[in-house]
Amino acid sequence: METITLSRLGLIHTPFTTFAGMPIQSVGAKGIAGWIDLDPRYADGLRDLDGFEYLHLIYYLDRMSEAKLIVTPFLDNTPRGVFATRSPKRPNALGLSIVRLVAVNGSRVDIEDVDMLDGTPLLDIKPYVPAFDVRSTERIGWFAGKINHIDQVRSDDRFI
Amino acid sequence: METITLSRLGLIHTPFTTFAGMPIQSVGAKGIAGWIDLDPRYADGLRDLDGFEYLHLIYYLDRMSEAKLIVTPFLDNTPRGVFATRSPKRPNALGLSIVRLVAVNGSRVDIEDVDMLDGTPLLDIKPYVPAFDVRSTERIGWFAGKINHIDQVRSDDRFI
Repeated sequence: METITLSRLGLIHTPFTTFAGMPIQSVGAKGIAGWIDLDPRYADGLRDLDGFEYLHLIYYLDRMSEAKLIVTPFLDNTPRGVFATRSPKRPNALGLSIVRLVAVNGSRVDIEDVDMLDGTPLLDIKPYVPAFDVRSTERIGWFAGKINHIDQVRSDDRFI
Repeated sequence: METITLSRLGLIHTPFTTFAGMPIQSVGAKGIAGWIDLDPRYADGLRDLDGFEYLHLIYYLDRMSEAKLIVTPFLDNTPRGVFATRSPKRPNALGLSIVRLVAVNGSRVDIEDVDMLDGTPLLDIKPYVPAFDVRSTERIGWFAGKINHIDQVRSDDRFI
């Protein structure tokens, strides 16, 4: 099995229609509102979701052009291996963001801290649980010293 | 576009050949060694990875049977919406784990804290960066009060 086929579970709606000007991580998108329009056939899977504050979203970066193995990230001027970055130009164009849950109504999930394009296909929702998802480390590779102002960094069009 | 096709980037090797007895989260798998056998054509993408202590792996739960929208998680006796759980029986069978990087050699990545089956298809590697990936919250839904002994909980065969 060399290829894996997944289903689009719904769309993520955000204020961002172009790459230029987007926040580059959800920590840089605090309070920016969006919503998930889940296909109603999956709505039963949202039961109990409203007890959580944060969610992991896995989604498909559907407007990426071809992947690169070496990329120059937004926060750096040095080419890096793509798996050592959060660049969207990955061999599998998968995005991973932590968003804040605001409300669940039927198949609609209102969220904040969105850092993806409007209309992005959703692949999965998992609850964020600090006991599982928090790690403490100082070993952050080339990011060291470059992420103090992440909330002010915005995307440009280098990945289009 | 209702379906999305991804490529298997390699395989994750672990000591676990059956669901029964597996740790259910990587925090319950501390020090358990495994390795990623990346397809050599993607090896250039590993440049600079060795500066990081932790990695997010996204992978395909290839030995799951059909998905369910309502599941009874390992840690609970109450049926829950699947998106409010980390159950593997998801509409898209995607796994997400934080593993500890030990070494990178060519297209081989040695890791620890593995909580997936041997031979699991790898879809993506992203560096874990606390400034992006850590959230503090007490709102952990039905997990509240149930995760004190996560390191002692093991899988059974309810998801096979």
